[in-house]
This record gives sequence, structure tokens and C-alpha cells, in this order.
Amino acid sequence: MGALVITRDSGPQPADFADVRATNLAVVLRHLRTEAPCSRADIAATTGLNKATVSSLVTDLIDRRLVREIGMTENRIGRPATMLVLDGSPYAAVGLEINTDYLTAVALDLAGERLLSWRRAFTGQAVASLAALARRAVGKLEREGRQVLGLTVAVPGLVEPGFAKSLAAALGEPAYPLLVENDANLAVLAEQRLGASPQTADLAYVTGGTSIGAGIISDGRLLRGTRGFAGEFGHLPLDPAGPVCSCGRRGCLEAYAGLGAVIRRALPDATLSPSEFGPHLDEIHRLAKAGDERVLAALTDVGRHLGHAISLLANLVNPACVALGGHFAVLSPWLIPPATAELEARSVAADCGGTRIVASALDTSAAAAGGATRVLDAIDAGTLPPPLAR
Amino acid sequence: MGALVITRDSGPQPADFADVRATNLAVVLRHLRTEAPCSRADIAATTGLNKATVSSLVTDLIDRRLVREIGMTENRIGRPATMLVLDGSPYAAVGLEINTDYLTAVALDLAGERLLSWRRAFTGQAVASLAALARRAVGKLEREGRQVLGLTVAVPGLVEPGFAKSLAAALGEPAYPLLVENDANLAVLAEQRLGASPQTADLAYVTGGTSIGAGIISDGRLLRGTRGFAGEFGHLPLDPAGPVCSCGRRGCLEAYAGLGAVIRRALPDATLSPSEFGPHLDEIHRLAKAGDERVLAALTDVGRHLGHAISLLANLVNPACVALGGHFAVLSPWLIPPATAELEARSVAADCGGTRIVASALDTSAAAAGGATRVLDAIDAGTLPPPLAR
Repeated sequence: MGALVITRDSGPQPADFADVRATNLAVVLRHLRTEAPCSRADIAATTGLNKATVSSLVTDLIDRRLVREIGMTENRIGRPATMLVLDGSPYAAVGLEINTDYLTAVALDLAGERLLSWRRAFTGQAVASLAALARRAVGKLEREGRQVLGLTVAVPGLVEPGFAKSLAAALGEPAYPLLVENDANLAVLAEQRLGASPQTADLAYVTGGTSIGAGIISDGRLLRGTRGFAGEFGHLPLDPAGPVCSCGRRGCLEAYAGLGAVIRRALPDATLSPSEFGPHLDEIHRLAKAGDERVLAALTDVGRHLGHAISLLANLVNPACVALGGHFAVLSPWLIPPATAELEARSVAADCGGTRIVASALDTSAAAAGGATRVLDAIDAGTLPPPLAR
Repeated sequence: MGALVITRDSGPQPADFADVRATNLAVVLRHLRTEAPCSRADIAATTGLNKATVSSLVTDLIDRRLVREIGMTENRIGRPATMLVLDGSPYAAVGLEINTDYLTAVALDLAGERLLSWRRAFTGQAVASLAALARRAVGKLEREGRQVLGLTVAVPGLVEPGFAKSLAAALGEPAYPLLVENDANLAVLAEQRLGASPQTADLAYVTGGTSIGAGIISDGRLLRGTRGFAGEFGHLPLDPAGPVCSCGRRGCLEAYAGLGAVIRRALPDATLSPSEFGPHLDEIHRLAKAGDERVLAALTDVGRHLGHAISLLANLVNPACVALGGHFAVLSPWLIPPATAELEARSVAADCGGTRIVASALDTSAAAAGGATRVLDAIDAGTLPPPLAR
């Protein structure tokens, strides 16, 4: 019954009629993705949609250059018919990501191929820096003849409602849709579409950095919760007698496994200025590879606490895969074994209920790639861009 | 975009073509639920489905007596047309529930009205007792001229694969679909369809009893996880220095708040035989109402631990509502205030991210009602029963 979302205004109900056209657009796009070239009549015959509906849907798709005609060919029953294929070449989807000391930009085409992947030092004001980077990326793509389908900005933590408005103003109210989303939610979308297990319908992505969050996909869909706060992972309480956390509580995951805490544990003499976190992480990685005992002991302890927190997620949500990003990905050879042991010890279901902990297959631009992925997902679900100017 | 599930075999994709007919059946059923009486042409005009498709779908629905014709009337454009209305009167959906010392049976009609609600003492062997109760319920419904659409049995904890098979054999391989499901998953379905907040798309149900589980609905859909183990709530670890739990770990929620632990805390002199748990719970309820200080202190402590565990669920899944069942519902006046205070203290998002803790509006047959609901949900999603014998 994968075709339906059961929404419940007064008992379970199928999709709204208003969604039927979007559903049908998505069905036509998918048919063309797998079966093209094919004719309008072929599409009608396979989907059960009537020919007038298919013609109207295809006109919409052609107007938006998502589909194009490639001339006449004989169709199944031998009559000449205009054949259709997917297009989409004139489009690009853009994602930006804010980190403590750098910004990332990624652009994808409709097939998910990278058109650009930039990293820039970030020192100034967030909105102005993002707007400058967005203008450069969009300018480059437009000079290449592409229309930007949308731009999504990944931000850590809870999204401030005014942020998107300020950014839109700084960009001069762009014509393309502008979204701001939690970085963990976007990273898990990218992990699913572009990562190592693209077929996984149940997975989570844990962001590593000074703060820690989780993005969760359950049964193929992003889990958001009633107000969009799902995936609050960094402040899961692990031990009421644990160290004081930046949030004022005790024993949160972040107090054991946030990047600052990891540096404090592994390099007790290091200064803790965020601009030096990158070099410190490189140093920890070097010492771990060299077998430094203090660093290895610190990472084993971090891995245990990470596994404890993952066990809470695994028992409640039962993902097939938990992908580690950020510093957890960099240090994964030393974190995953103790984390997995802790998960095994704390799982109620046998074999951890099928949950595995892996390093993310994406580089540190996962959330930016997820921003672009978010734009593509909307197209694939039948939300078309406006018709192109001719 | 509520019409689509994005499944990902190779990137996000709309529904399978095989699901299109089920989607369309569901769309026609919903149209009739809200707009009947109406004609086949009306349905085609509103939904964009072609007339031949609508006729074929309506024939299926009539063959199954989910829809019936009520004679000719003028349609919108003044031509006489056969008008259609929903039927469904010849059907019943049945749910059974196993508890420590009793069984429950609930039957619903297609509108969700209760046709029967039974409770029977349970002392013998589970499969034989369930089969006997199922035969009595199905027999009564069939004597009333109803066809049983399906029967779902709610069981606590993880479902044993062989159980459904044994039950089907004990029932003589019945013609109706027989399902066995986790009781918490079924209870949350019932809470959503029949409870106090039927419009809630994000909610959880916590079962109270000797063991504790959670059913979670996220964005209108049951959250199952990769192997169906989602909602493992009773063994969430709250304190590594806590009391030893029946599972062998320390400080699990169940060790503080399971019915046995509550009785031990509130009635230290009581004997702990499961058959006396019911009377003990009544006694705790009586003492709490009378203001007994020891009982009130014990319930405050139980409520705090329950709220701690709910905060883990709230931070990770962000439901609008967590409904308490079983002994938690009975004792809710004394548990909800400390649980809510603990949730507030441990929520990262403001205002608990919108999560409220409430007592379930259903009586102790929530999981049995959920079993029947599960059967109705399948019909509403377009999985029709086989055509009736004529």
C-alpha cells in the first residue's frame, strides 16, 4: 500500500483531490524515467489515466522542459506517435551549509550529478556571507544556461523563523524557492539519495561537530514531528551523574562526544578556540593512527557514549543504518567498534534489531548536498517549477 | 505533497504502478464518503480518472457491497444517472487482545461503531483461548449477517513468527485475513481513529502493564522501523546506577514504572502474584484518592521516571501527544503532573516542542479496538475484501 499516505481529519482518508494532479505528474515522470522513449498513449495505457489527462500533464512537463518530444515513431499498435523523453538539462538545484568556520555550496543537476562543490572560509555575518556565496553559485549556474530550481540552506539546530526572510531580502527576493532546514534533516536526505545504501528506507544520520543532531528517515520519509523538532540527539541524557553540558543539564551526549568535549578529552593541553577545532581534529586523527594510548582511550570512551545514545534511537525508531558525519566520520575507525558494542549491549531486539553503525559515505558537505537533494525531491514528488520564459 | 510516499530504490520515486488501482479505489471510496449520493460521471469529473476506469472501480466496490446503487437521478448536467452511495453494512472488523489475566474482543463496523466489546478471564493456553474467543465473536457476527473482513490479534512485545500460523490452524484456516501485531502499535491506531484527538498526525501511545511498550504514529503513519522493532520503550535506560530490571540491565523504565514495580513501591507489603495485580491497582487508586502519603510519593516518583522516558521519545520523535494506557491511564491524575514537569525540564525545544502527555481516552480494550481499526485501515487504503458470494 505504498501509494497512500493515510491522513486523518475524520478517520483515515486517502490523498486530497488537490494532490491527485501532483500524484499523477509524479507517476508520469517516473514512467518516463524508466520507460522513455514512449508516447502519450503508452503512458495512458499503462497508468490507467485518461488520454486527455495525460496530454495535459505532458504539456505541463514540456512547458517546464522536464520532458521533451523527440519526433514520431510507431507506437505499440503500429500507429505513428510522438515519442517523449525526460529532459531537465536546463536545471540546477543548490544547497548551502553553515558550519562553525566555513560555508559549503553544492549544486546538483536533475540526475543528482554534482555541478559544483565549493568550500569557503566563514568569518563574518551569516546572512551576508551566505547571500554572497549563493549569488556566486547561482551566477555561475545561470551563465551556464541553467535555471535554478531552488536553494536550500542547512543550518545547525532549530531553524529561526526570521532567518529565511532575512536571507531572501539579502538575495533581492529571488524567483526560485528558498528554504532553510535543519542540517541533520538535509544530511540524511543526501545520505539516502547519494550515500552508500541508497535503497534504505529506514536510516538516520548523526551530525558531528560542536553540536550534535540527528536526521531520521522512517519508511522512506523524513521524520519531522509535530513542530519539526524530531531528531534532537545531542542533549539526550545519558547519565544523571555525568558532566555538566553547555545546555546546563548533566550527562548529555554532547558533553561526552561533541567536538569540544572530544578535544578536551584527547588533547587536555589544547586551547579550545573554535577556529582551531579543525587542526585539533587532524591532530587527534594523527595520534590515533599512531596508536597514542591516551587518545585511543578517549575515543573508546566517546564511542561508548555515542553508542549509548544511538541505542536510544535504535530502540525507539529501529533504523537499518545510522550514518556518522562530521568528526564522528573522521574518527570512525576508533569510534564505531565501541559504539557498536554498546549498541549490542543495550538493544532489546536480537542482532540490534538490524541496526548498523557506519561512517557516512559523503564528505563534509553532506548537509549542502542534502539541501540540493531537497529541491530535487520536490520535483520528483510532482511539485513542478514554474513554466520557463520563452 | 500528502499524496505520495517517496520510496527509494534508485532515488526518490512515486508510487508503484501496481499501487495506482488501490490509490484510485481509495480516492473513489473517499469521494463517496464525503459526496454521496453521486454518479460515476460525477466521480470521473472530480477526480480526473477516465469514465471507463471509474466504472471498473465502482463495479469492484459494488461486487464487494462497499457501494450500492440507489436508482436514477439527474446528474449535474441534467441527464439521468445512476446514483451511488457507500454501503458496508454487511461487514465487521474484529480485534482481540491478550493481557496477563484476561482477553478482550472488539468488533467494529465500517464506520468505526462498536458491534461488540467483550472481556473474558484468561487462564489457560493462549492460542486455544484466543481461538475460542475468536470463534464466539465471529459466530455472533455471522449470525447477524455480517462478513468478517479480518481479525487482528494484539500481543505484547515482539511478535513470534509462528504464532499467527498456530492460531490460523486452531481456527481451521479461516477465509478472512488473520494478523498478529504488537499491542502498542494497534493501540496507537485506535487512539488516533477513536480517541480524543482524531486529527493528530503525530502521536504515541504508551502501554501500561507488567511490561511497557510504545506505539508511534508519525505524519499519519505507523512507525515500524526496519524490522518492526520501533517503539521499544520499557527498557530505555534512565540511570546506569538504577535498580536491576527483569531484562538484567540496570535502571530501565520498566524497573521504575512497570505495574509490578509500581505495586512494590506503593504497597511494599503486597504479594506480587500477577493474578492479584488488578486488585492491587484498585487499592493503589483508592489510597491515592484518599491522599495516602506513601502512595502519593511513590506515584510522584513513578511519574518522574515516566516523564524522563517520554522526554527521550519527545526529543527524538516530537509527537503532539503521548497517550498513556493501562495502569498509567488509571493512575494518570497522580502521574501526569510529575511526568509533565520532567518532560519540561528535559525538552530541548521550547514548550516541550508541543508534546503533551494525556490519559488515553479509550478503555482498557485499546489494543483490541486497534486490531479492528487495522482491518478498516486496509479497506480505506484500497485493499478490498474478496467479492461476496451471491
